[in-house]
Amino acid sequence: MKQVNIGICGLGTVGGGTFNVLKRNAAVITGRSGCDIRVTRVATRQLRDDIDLTGVAVSEDIYDVVNDPAIDIVVELIGGYDAARELVLAAIANGKHVVTANKALIAVHGNELFDAAEKQGVIIAYEAGVAGGVPVIKALREGMAANRIDWIAGIINGTGNYILTEMRAGREFADVLKEAQALGYAEADPTFDVEGIDAAHKLTILASAGFGVPLQFERAFTEGISKVTPYDIAHAELLGYRIKHLGIARRREDGIELRVHPTLVPKDHLIAQVDGVLNAVLMDGDAVGQTMYYGAGAGAEATGSAVIADIVDVARVVASGSTQRVPYLGFAPEAMEDLKVLPMDDVQSAYYLRIQALDKPGVLAKIASVLSEQGINIESIMQKESEVEEGRIPVIILTHTVQERQINAAITELEALSEIVGSVVRIRTENFN
Amino acid sequence: MKQVNIGICGLGTVGGGTFNVLKRNAAVITGRSGCDIRVTRVATRQLRDDIDLTGVAVSEDIYDVVNDPAIDIVVELIGGYDAARELVLAAIANGKHVVTANKALIAVHGNELFDAAEKQGVIIAYEAGVAGGVPVIKALREGMAANRIDWIAGIINGTGNYILTEMRAGREFADVLKEAQALGYAEADPTFDVEGIDAAHKLTILASAGFGVPLQFERAFTEGISKVTPYDIAHAELLGYRIKHLGIARRREDGIELRVHPTLVPKDHLIAQVDGVLNAVLMDGDAVGQTMYYGAGAGAEATGSAVIADIVDVARVVASGSTQRVPYLGFAPEAMEDLKVLPMDDVQSAYYLRIQALDKPGVLAKIASVLSEQGINIESIMQKESEVEEGRIPVIILTHTVQERQINAAITELEALSEIVGSVVRIRTENFN
Repeated sequence: MKQVNIGICGLGTVGGGTFNVLKRNAAVITGRSGCDIRVTRVATRQLRDDIDLTGVAVSEDIYDVVNDPAIDIVVELIGGYDAARELVLAAIANGKHVVTANKALIAVHGNELFDAAEKQGVIIAYEAGVAGGVPVIKALREGMAANRIDWIAGIINGTGNYILTEMRAGREFADVLKEAQALGYAEADPTFDVEGIDAAHKLTILASAGFGVPLQFERAFTEGISKVTPYDIAHAELLGYRIKHLGIARRREDGIELRVHPTLVPKDHLIAQVDGVLNAVLMDGDAVGQTMYYGAGAGAEATGSAVIADIVDVARVVASGSTQRVPYLGFAPEAMEDLKVLPMDDVQSAYYLRIQALDKPGVLAKIASVLSEQGINIESIMQKESEVEEGRIPVIILTHTVQERQINAAITELEALSEIVGSVVRIRTENFN
Repeated sequence: MKQVNIGICGLGTVGGGTFNVLKRNAAVITGRSGCDIRVTRVATRQLRDDIDLTGVAVSEDIYDVVNDPAIDIVVELIGGYDAARELVLAAIANGKHVVTANKALIAVHGNELFDAAEKQGVIIAYEAGVAGGVPVIKALREGMAANRIDWIAGIINGTGNYILTEMRAGREFADVLKEAQALGYAEADPTFDVEGIDAAHKLTILASAGFGVPLQFERAFTEGISKVTPYDIAHAELLGYRIKHLGIARRREDGIELRVHPTLVPKDHLIAQVDGVLNAVLMDGDAVGQTMYYGAGAGAEATGSAVIADIVDVARVVASGSTQRVPYLGFAPEAMEDLKVLPMDDVQSAYYLRIQALDKPGVLAKIASVLSEQGINIESIMQKESEVEEGRIPVIILTHTVQERQINAAITELEALSEIVGSVVRIRTENFN
């Protein structure tokens, strides 16, 4: 049985989980891979009591791993951008395959890294970068190979989903965020999670692997959940919708939509039922229709599970000396399309609008006329006399699908009306059809 | 670009879907696979107006496909047992790789076929056999490679799930079945679907690919849904459960559980929300926890999507001349364990019991005492005076997890009591924890 040597860079949460699962399930992993997968080197700045490194060469310098001629696969788990990029480029230059859980690295530097890896004939695998332990990259690149993928929508940040789930009980964002921080679900600086940056990294990767377009993280639109209110959550529910922080990528003829924002989704759709810290990715292929992939999007061993699945895939290549490859982004480089991310003005969506109006006759007619002039059809409208406060009443409108520029124009006009107070709240809405 | 030649045997629903998607999405499939995948031969007894076979050699004899030296991959879509088995064995003998959607074939003859294929070094791929277009075999064999899989539970027959979904509105089984037949969701002879045989084929395959044990369809337990009543569905809902027709495979130290039966599942679990003809497979791995895979379990193009995903995987092997293989049942033959399917008496489950009792004092105590003597703990009990009819009252009990033999013994004792009328209704219950 061929021995395949693994070097792990970084022994934090995911590194530790990966190491421990590789050890605990060595028999299963050998049985599945047909190779003797051995961690022969680890680079870490801090040793951990819960990890037994007996028999493993340990050093502080990650380049000891990359420069060890015996290492077949470098596992990059140090995180971050620049140091990780340099590490991976060095590993590629040394002819080593790379497995990483670093979505930021792939989303931002992936085009460069894949290009370098392609020239060297080595693999970069990144299943663990999206949706943790859920094998969604494999599903997209391989399981969906027959399909033209039309769109992808994912709950791909557990922190955000936890907060929105808890807010359904009527709690405020700030209150739940504090709790999430206490529970360790959210960082001290939660920006990365709650403002959608982490989700945009993952969405960028999903879109490229699904559509065969270059990674364009810098063009992704992100809107966080910090402005979502229990009021809007409750009223969305009354209209048959739930608010989720979704990453949405849609392939259009002239480009792709790439956007992360709070989204109303139909309550009876399966993705609306995905609660707490869990992740789910829904995709639509022209042959298969909608499929969904669900599970833990984070955690030491769940993410380690995806890292190891990649290691096994790559180990099979190493052991068989095969030139067989799944293309980095699903499509062979020459089959990639240079489709650009569309500006938000060109995005197509339905919308939930909450308008604070003066409670007097004719206001509704004015609102309807502004929308109509912009070519926006109303799907449903809700206004409750019981909600009148200081002579003002909230008017909630669900629109049909239109272009975002139409809604922007309508909102500008609405906010200019003397009968409208303050800003119009706008939440995008997806019906998945 | 290397050309890979495909021969399709059978041009029915799935064959037609496969052919049409291969043609429509040729550019996408070439871009993903890196090969020129061409259907050069088709064997079919009946030509179809909706399929343009221009440029394809067509014959009635499936052996024209198998014996064509130019064919690299034989796609078996004729269905059934014996003829399909002989066809696949002949293809293997001719050194051809095989892609099939035939779960019955794999569940019943898989051990023999994989053995023959292993000796010839050819691949048999069967993603389309389980859960239609959902890439669940890929998830299990590859995505979960790091995990010891502890159990698998699936809604893997769309017909049964459609019927149970419709029955939630209070309709009787026979009534919904007729409708399903009219809609084309159920066959004229629905036995295969509603009695769980089709699901048992798929479950057999999932269990073997998950646990690394030989296929043992002949030992699978099947109980159909024809005896499920709207009454039990409604009362399960009151207790917080939904009734689904589940295939359940569980790895135990001394063997595996392999069983298809109506099952109470917690209403707030995602799998309870999978309605209509859709399929979902839930699996539990020791590292990743629970993951679920959802989508269309049948249909021409959805199943064709899975057939083509397999074709692409195999085409990569053909084009690269690689010896790289994913083992047929997830584990290398020498790593397979000869774990036997346990008899139902040894299965562990919670239970829903419905007991028709005389409405008089002391009956509940007698029932409780019978259960207690068998070591069965009661999780909850429900009895409503409003349901008394002709001096009888239904007593509904949810038990903790016990061995099936304990429940069998208790039911025998209960039915012997003079205060109990008729048979005790027993439905197995899963809490997924």
